[in-house]
Amino acid sequence: MATLGLIEYADASPEVRAVYDDIMATRRTDWINNFWKALAHDPATLRRTWESIKQIMGPGALDPLTKEMIYLAVSTSNQCSYCIASHTAAARKAGMTDTMLAELMAVVGMANETNRLSAGYQVEIDEKFKK
Amino acid sequence: MATLGLIEYADASPEVRAVYDDIMATRRTDWINNFWKALAHDPATLRRTWESIKQIMGPGALDPLTKEMIYLAVSTSNQCSYCIASHTAAARKAGMTDTMLAELMAVVGMANETNRLSAGYQVEIDEKFKK
Amino acid sequence: MATLGLIEYADASPEVRAVYDDIMATRRTDWINNFWKALAHDPATLRRTWESIKQIMGPGALDPLTKEMIYLAVSTSNQCSYCIASHTAAARKAGMTDTMLAELMAVVGMANETNRLSAGYQVEIDEKFKK
Amino acid sequence: MATLGLIEYADASPEVRAVYDDIMATRRTDWINNFWKALAHDPATLRRTWESIKQIMGPGALDPLTKEMIYLAVSTSNQCSYCIASHTAAARKAGMTDTMLAELMAVVGMANETNRLSAGYQVEIDEKFKK
Amino acid sequence: MATLGLIEYADASPEVRAVYDDIMATRRTDWINNFWKALAHDPATLRRTWESIKQIMGPGALDPLTKEMIYLAVSTSNQCSYCIASHTAAARKAGMTDTMLAELMAVVGMANETNRLSAGYQVEIDEKFKK
Amino acid sequence: MATLGLIEYADASPEVRAVYDDIMATRRTDWINNFWKALAHDPATLRRTWESIKQIMGPGALDPLTKEMIYLAVSTSNQCSYCIASHTAAARKAGMTDTMLAELMAVVGMANETNRLSAGYQVEIDEKFKK
Repeated sequence: MATLGLIEYADASPEVRAVYDDIMATRRTDWINNFWKALAHDPATLRRTWESIKQIMGPGALDPLTKEMIYLAVSTSNQCSYCIASHTAAARKAGMTDTMLAELMAVVGMANETNRLSAGYQVEIDEKFKK
Repeated sequence: MATLGLIEYADASPEVRAVYDDIMATRRTDWINNFWKALAHDPATLRRTWESIKQIMGPGALDPLTKEMIYLAVSTSNQCSYCIASHTAAARKAGMTDTMLAELMAVVGMANETNRLSAGYQVEIDEKFKK
Repeated sequence: MATLGLIEYADASPEVRAVYDDIMATRRTDWINNFWKALAHDPATLRRTWESIKQIMGPGALDPLTKEMIYLAVSTSNQCSYCIASHTAAARKAGMTDTMLAELMAVVGMANETNRLSAGYQVEIDEKFKK
Repeated sequence: MATLGLIEYADASPEVRAVYDDIMATRRTDWINNFWKALAHDPATLRRTWESIKQIMGPGALDPLTKEMIYLAVSTSNQCSYCIASHTAAARKAGMTDTMLAELMAVVGMANETNRLSAGYQVEIDEKFKK
Repeated sequence: MATLGLIEYADASPEVRAVYDDIMATRRTDWINNFWKALAHDPATLRRTWESIKQIMGPGALDPLTKEMIYLAVSTSNQCSYCIASHTAAARKAGMTDTMLAELMAVVGMANETNRLSAGYQVEIDEKFKK
Repeated sequence: MATLGLIEYADASPEVRAVYDDIMATRRTDWINNFWKALAHDPATLRRTWESIKQIMGPGALDPLTKEMIYLAVSTSNQCSYCIASHTAAARKAGMTDTMLAELMAVVGMANETNRLSAGYQVEIDEKFKK
């Protein structure tokens, strides 16, 4: 159970409902996932977190699918089970196929391996990389 | 200094040179970065690591630029200084602009934040995400 | 299930019971949580871990509530589900309100974000901070 | 060197200067540390990150010193060298003494130890903690 | 549920079956654990991962038991619940006793503690260690 | 520079000297590495940390070399530069050869890779592993 419980739409304050409404409108969906319902106990954090994600994940130099895959890659590397579940769903909705998911996971695994090899062998950064 | 030192091409065994040659040919470059020179003390790991990266990072359902950006995102999340330096260079070579780098970093930062919020609030995974 | 099982008070050796007794007396409680019952298979580690925690978490320049919140912040950052559950309870017992918990989580999330931004942008430490 | 370089006040756009000015006013200081100068290449992230930190670290149910110490604890647990350096300075400015720093570090170390012991022994969460 | 589901032997392609057969033969067992069944959706990653593990975990300068214990130690430090469960089983099969497991966990816990103390106190590396 | 500076033997209190003396006697060496000199500002933590390490790293069901290698493996996985440097030296002193170091690093890298693959594919723990 979430530490402070989950706040459903019906029980939410107008301030929280406004965020929920914006999430649903932005994501073209009619439900709110538990993450937001748990955060809703702290309306300032709910709003700030949502506004930040909305700004960051919107279209830019990187397309939304690439951003969602980066989000999933980081969540996987951090082994965050909630985030892996929710961002796998989000990335699929943005267009990630099963083959893309598998390639993404291979890259994440490999990066974690070589991160430790470079640390463990105490490899100094090449001068060429310092510019 | 790298724990076991760095093996330069001139001092490398034929087995190691064969890997160095393949790295340079595949990457269309004429130099070898320190990571490989440090690994070269263990030719089996040198070969296996290179063959794995070559297989994983090649073209597939994800293009090489996306793969490089995922690699950089994971290395950043893991705060691996060598890998951040080397994969920033690699991603740029594959086409990452400064604007794309900035957007990538924003996503990595945000994912690290919400990973902890979901863990800290002990949010249970939504049933919809379990399928 | 805990790897080695849980040792209940009734089944515990005198050596283990002595630690259990001290935990209950120090914490003014009449039960032992699973962490200690799992560690009890290694009485030396049980004792050393308990003695260390007792020494560290006692009153000092930092009050017990602040210490418990730092413990919870670290456990959250590490995404340790057992520790988040147990230290949320401990911090509440020490006086943490829901509002304090929410503020704590906001700080933990933000720190995790900026930790990666500073690493990802390869920011060098300011001279002023080196003294 | 920071990947994109550092943007000094004299070279900053009005948008970036506005953030720098607010940082200096809020912190009652006359200089900007490298973190912000590196982020300034992405004014949207600069502003969002600063606004978030300003909101989160301001007075609330937790006093600014406690928040700074939690920030330092998380940065230490994540072994982020830049953040440890900058938030040690910030926490000291907020009132952290050397004795408090030492107690903080002891708690961070202990939490990291028991986080792994609970994971390694596969300890199940007590029913009492699930409410 | 695994994201892409689990591929049982009866439903596997010849390519996947060949890997499954080699796993069972190498490990002298008649079943395949879920990790491989989940990876089997990406036969290239299945094969590469298995070939790598087979090469790395085989006898060398380190005996298989020591290698399994190092694998378990890393998985514990990373708090990977699947890997802790599977590598506890593997290490036991290789000869790890309960006492050895307890000593291993004590080392993992201690290393995680001192890793943070050295980072938090910003300890510079001794010249003697740089050679 | 270490946050609180380093306390040399000549400047140490009798309480700190007693720990330094025990470290040198136990390790059959005539110098103290920076980690302890940094911790010495907090004599209680200095003593507790040393007593814990002495107890944990001494001979038991696991020999000192295996324990040192596990310590190095964890420090590498955590990418703690100070600890990698110091425990590489300690493991070598205990008998680790360059070949053993290379095999250790290969295991650490591989474990970090499969830890993320199992998390990313959301692999459920096999029933056989739950006993």
